[in-house]
Amino acid sequence: MSDKINRRILFSRLMVGNPKKEDFELIEEPLPEPGEMQLLLRNLYVSIDPGSRDRLSGRDSYVPAKTLGEVMDTQSVSQVVVSRHPDYQVGDIVAGYHGWQDYAISNGKGLSRVDSGLGPISNAIGVFGLPGLTAYVGIRKLLKVASGETVLISSAAGAVGSIAGQIAKIGGAYVVGIAGGEEKCAFSKKVYCFDEMIDYKSESNINEALEKACPKGVDVYFDNVGGEILNAAVANMRRSGRILICGQVAEYNIEPAQRIGLRDVSAFIGKRLNMRGFVVLDHSEFFDEAKNTMADWIKNKQLIVREHIVEGLENAPQAFCGLFRGENFGRGLVHVADPSQ
Amino acid sequence: MSDKINRRILFSRLMVGNPKKEDFELIEEPLPEPGEMQLLLRNLYVSIDPGSRDRLSGRDSYVPAKTLGEVMDTQSVSQVVVSRHPDYQVGDIVAGYHGWQDYAISNGKGLSRVDSGLGPISNAIGVFGLPGLTAYVGIRKLLKVASGETVLISSAAGAVGSIAGQIAKIGGAYVVGIAGGEEKCAFSKKVYCFDEMIDYKSESNINEALEKACPKGVDVYFDNVGGEILNAAVANMRRSGRILICGQVAEYNIEPAQRIGLRDVSAFIGKRLNMRGFVVLDHSEFFDEAKNTMADWIKNKQLIVREHIVEGLENAPQAFCGLFRGENFGRGLVHVADPSQ
Repeated sequence: MSDKINRRILFSRLMVGNPKKEDFELIEEPLPEPGEMQLLLRNLYVSIDPGSRDRLSGRDSYVPAKTLGEVMDTQSVSQVVVSRHPDYQVGDIVAGYHGWQDYAISNGKGLSRVDSGLGPISNAIGVFGLPGLTAYVGIRKLLKVASGETVLISSAAGAVGSIAGQIAKIGGAYVVGIAGGEEKCAFSKKVYCFDEMIDYKSESNINEALEKACPKGVDVYFDNVGGEILNAAVANMRRSGRILICGQVAEYNIEPAQRIGLRDVSAFIGKRLNMRGFVVLDHSEFFDEAKNTMADWIKNKQLIVREHIVEGLENAPQAFCGLFRGENFGRGLVHVADPSQ
Repeated sequence: MSDKINRRILFSRLMVGNPKKEDFELIEEPLPEPGEMQLLLRNLYVSIDPGSRDRLSGRDSYVPAKTLGEVMDTQSVSQVVVSRHPDYQVGDIVAGYHGWQDYAISNGKGLSRVDSGLGPISNAIGVFGLPGLTAYVGIRKLLKVASGETVLISSAAGAVGSIAGQIAKIGGAYVVGIAGGEEKCAFSKKVYCFDEMIDYKSESNINEALEKACPKGVDVYFDNVGGEILNAAVANMRRSGRILICGQVAEYNIEPAQRIGLRDVSAFIGKRLNMRGFVVLDHSEFFDEAKNTMADWIKNKQLIVREHIVEGLENAPQAFCGLFRGENFGRGLVHVADPSQ
């Protein structure tokens, strides 16, 4: 295999503001050789995650800041091409964090086998990966959303929000979503069956739009974006409302000192609000339950999964940049290669 | 008694920015006559509460906005002067919400008898009233501060903060207080036995001062002030840190749209922070335990109570304005009259 080339996309420039294609560099290297107890993996799908942005400015977030010249280590679904490890065989499909490259070496640590019985293998890093698990654990285990509650979800047509909203609906909540653009809003109402959708791109006053869409006020806000929408949500929260901070896409591109943040902290007293930050990796005890329950829902057509698949590894950087312009619609993935038999 | 005069201090102008003496008006009225099932009360002590500010701008807070021309209905310790109610006798000492006036009519609703066995009667609206109960319930019941944790307290020489910090110390925490001025800081270290004090008036960089005073980071922030100090606390919180929002004195005088608020909401994800707003009136099931436990601590000199008593009802407005300039040092009270036998 020494004539084969491994394309790798590196993080090559500290980001200021919106990510740019030029912040990445595509290099070509010879295929690496796995050592004793190692595997050579061929990536089939890799992910496009808004959460990656927060560590591309040189600051630590819930994972340490990335240093320049590293490969973008997003989630991946891969096939074992060479195995020098007793636990894996050539042809096995595994999920891990091998990111934006054609091939990677693994020692088996952090890998999980993809259960193709649950659905298409790309789902392993979508609904059965961090986005879906975040939605399930957030709505069912941390927020404990009850039937009849009003649940507000931002980035509602996205990878996490679309699943979170549907899980809240399955539990009997009244679900209001916020997304950008007519198409996403119409789709979310029709296919995800959300009760109301707010198109933040066409609304001049999010606060009033929220007031109208949530006539009883908001019991639960599942926040993927932060910024002005978080502030409007706080203004519309009911007494004892709960806010789960899952993502802050609107704030990642802004230096901390310039961030909009949350203006009216006094409202937390008046309304007895509770706000909590959340990383699903802390709650792995719920993962099996989440995967099995969501697989059942998908089979029963109670849960609809939409993926936004970009063709070709070389297009990963521009797909990542597009995330912050609201161009994704569903779980963002790059299709790198097909599995061989 | 028809020749007697009742002085009453009314809220007479909507406040913008810092409260001013001229926002209040002192009027004189004839003594009111209690009807059937009513009492005439003579106020002995009335309170000076920073929390009142938030409803003097025409906005609702955790109590509805006050309307102009109403008497300032702060907490009060009073003596029954005339009783036409079977449950009360002339001479009884009661606590209620009769505020800035010499005399008030009560139908007995919302009154509680003052147990003079617990301490001086002024304590009924101090350590055994809302400030002390807020401190006790906050530290012991909601934050559940554990031994060895680092607890940061703002407005640490004030009515709530001084009690909260001492209760955290009794529970074995490492307590760092923030207060304004050398005298308050020295007193809090010496008398309240706080481990470290930060004088926010002399520190040019609160963030660095916190880093130095809390070398392990902050586990619990008991927030009475909000604003820049809240932001510095968030920057110094440890993983899974808890923030209890009890007061926002630094923000009450600022229109919501101009408030500093909380800038770095992303830190809530990275550090899995939890922030909760709190009004002690929701937790009356703990009041008896709190009063009895604190009375024991006071007897054993484990808990030191300091009151800042201003002489004369007519001085209540300027004492209130002084609160926001940091002039209070301990529980703010106005001494209106002495009990008669």
